[in-house]
Amino acid sequence: MKFGLLLFPNLTQLDLTGPLEVFSRMNGVETALIWKTLDPVSSDRGMRILPTHTFEEAGKLDLVCVPGGPGQIELMSDQETLDYLRGVARDCKWVTSVCTGSLVLGAAGLLDGYRATSHWSSIDQLALFGADPVFERVVRDRNRITGAGVTSGIDFALNIAADLFGDDAARAIQLQIEYDPKPPFKDGSPRSADPGLVAEIRGDIAPFIDRRRRASEAAAKVLRSRDTPAS
Amino acid sequence: MKFGLLLFPNLTQLDLTGPLEVFSRMNGVETALIWKTLDPVSSDRGMRILPTHTFEEAGKLDLVCVPGGPGQIELMSDQETLDYLRGVARDCKWVTSVCTGSLVLGAAGLLDGYRATSHWSSIDQLALFGADPVFERVVRDRNRITGAGVTSGIDFALNIAADLFGDDAARAIQLQIEYDPKPPFKDGSPRSADPGLVAEIRGDIAPFIDRRRRASEAAAKVLRSRDTPAS
Repeated sequence: MKFGLLLFPNLTQLDLTGPLEVFSRMNGVETALIWKTLDPVSSDRGMRILPTHTFEEAGKLDLVCVPGGPGQIELMSDQETLDYLRGVARDCKWVTSVCTGSLVLGAAGLLDGYRATSHWSSIDQLALFGADPVFERVVRDRNRITGAGVTSGIDFALNIAADLFGDDAARAIQLQIEYDPKPPFKDGSPRSADPGLVAEIRGDIAPFIDRRRRASEAAAKVLRSRDTPAS
Repeated sequence: MKFGLLLFPNLTQLDLTGPLEVFSRMNGVETALIWKTLDPVSSDRGMRILPTHTFEEAGKLDLVCVPGGPGQIELMSDQETLDYLRGVARDCKWVTSVCTGSLVLGAAGLLDGYRATSHWSSIDQLALFGADPVFERVVRDRNRITGAGVTSGIDFALNIAADLFGDDAARAIQLQIEYDPKPPFKDGSPRSADPGLVAEIRGDIAPFIDRRRRASEAAAKVLRSRDTPAS
């Protein structure tokens, strides 16, 4: 089986590297990091990673995964990337995302009528693409599997391991990567975090989230125009 | 402040990318991925990452972090790397590791007399270097902070965030990265996992762990010979 992860500029690297660590421990799974060229791609915080395949080289995939991060905003208006995702998704057994990667799937028209999740700060924007936002860590609807923010990619990938290879295989990977988390605080979700902290962070990121929303709205408009045949 | 992570061939990438995601969200912290050259470094499962600084370029660090992974075996007899770690550690406020990176710190003589942890499969090997193995997710002894296997690097880094910048700063990062883990199984630690699974995995990896042990024994011998002045 071949699992492809989209490696795009200004992604949040842990959205990709978390699932990649799990995927690459599945027996019989080949992983591909896919982008337009094979030049190094820089994450939002400057980590540079090398793609393994271009869009042309990657071929058919069993699973495609779109991570998130600020670069996702540009992707939502990048028709080359959206066309690639639409095309590759057609033959995929699983069409997946982590964090705000789900908004890219949405912009490609791949979540219309599906339940899905995203980073807590932006999950409501999924509705712009006809998706039904579900505030859970991992959401599956038919062959769409979406993970919540950043670190959810590890839970997301272990769930996929269990689906595809059975619980025992997933448990073996969980033990290998010693995934026995001990978060130092209870503030990992707005549902459990101190409300004052949530309000403060929401305030800090408001201008960025607004920029994302305008991009989502524009992408949704482009998507609707595609659905309306020219008269 | 400057935090340096050792980026070496055949590392387990999540040992590095987990903490890096947290470190790079700390205000006023610059991160460096440090290796002998600036050529791409391949992880144990083929992800290629670009170093940002050579040993010569990296300069003084406030924190050094050694991740783990199979390439750690070769590092334990790599005197250039061990010399680099000994040198840079002298001026560091914090000397740290994730997973079997602690065995590299041990081979550099940096854990003698310290409590420390490592991946569950290899934690006992710390004793070869005069360290006191402690089976906890994150272990601190004076300025040494060590994390357990792979995914522990996220907990490890959030603990460091709290130490250096206060609980509120660490909680803000935990919320940003939505670290509200929901492991699908209880098998992330040999203490909670099904004993049959643990026995099976121990059997599967026994030849590899033996190879690591022989390398640790050899490295401990070299270290003792350094401590004995030539007569």
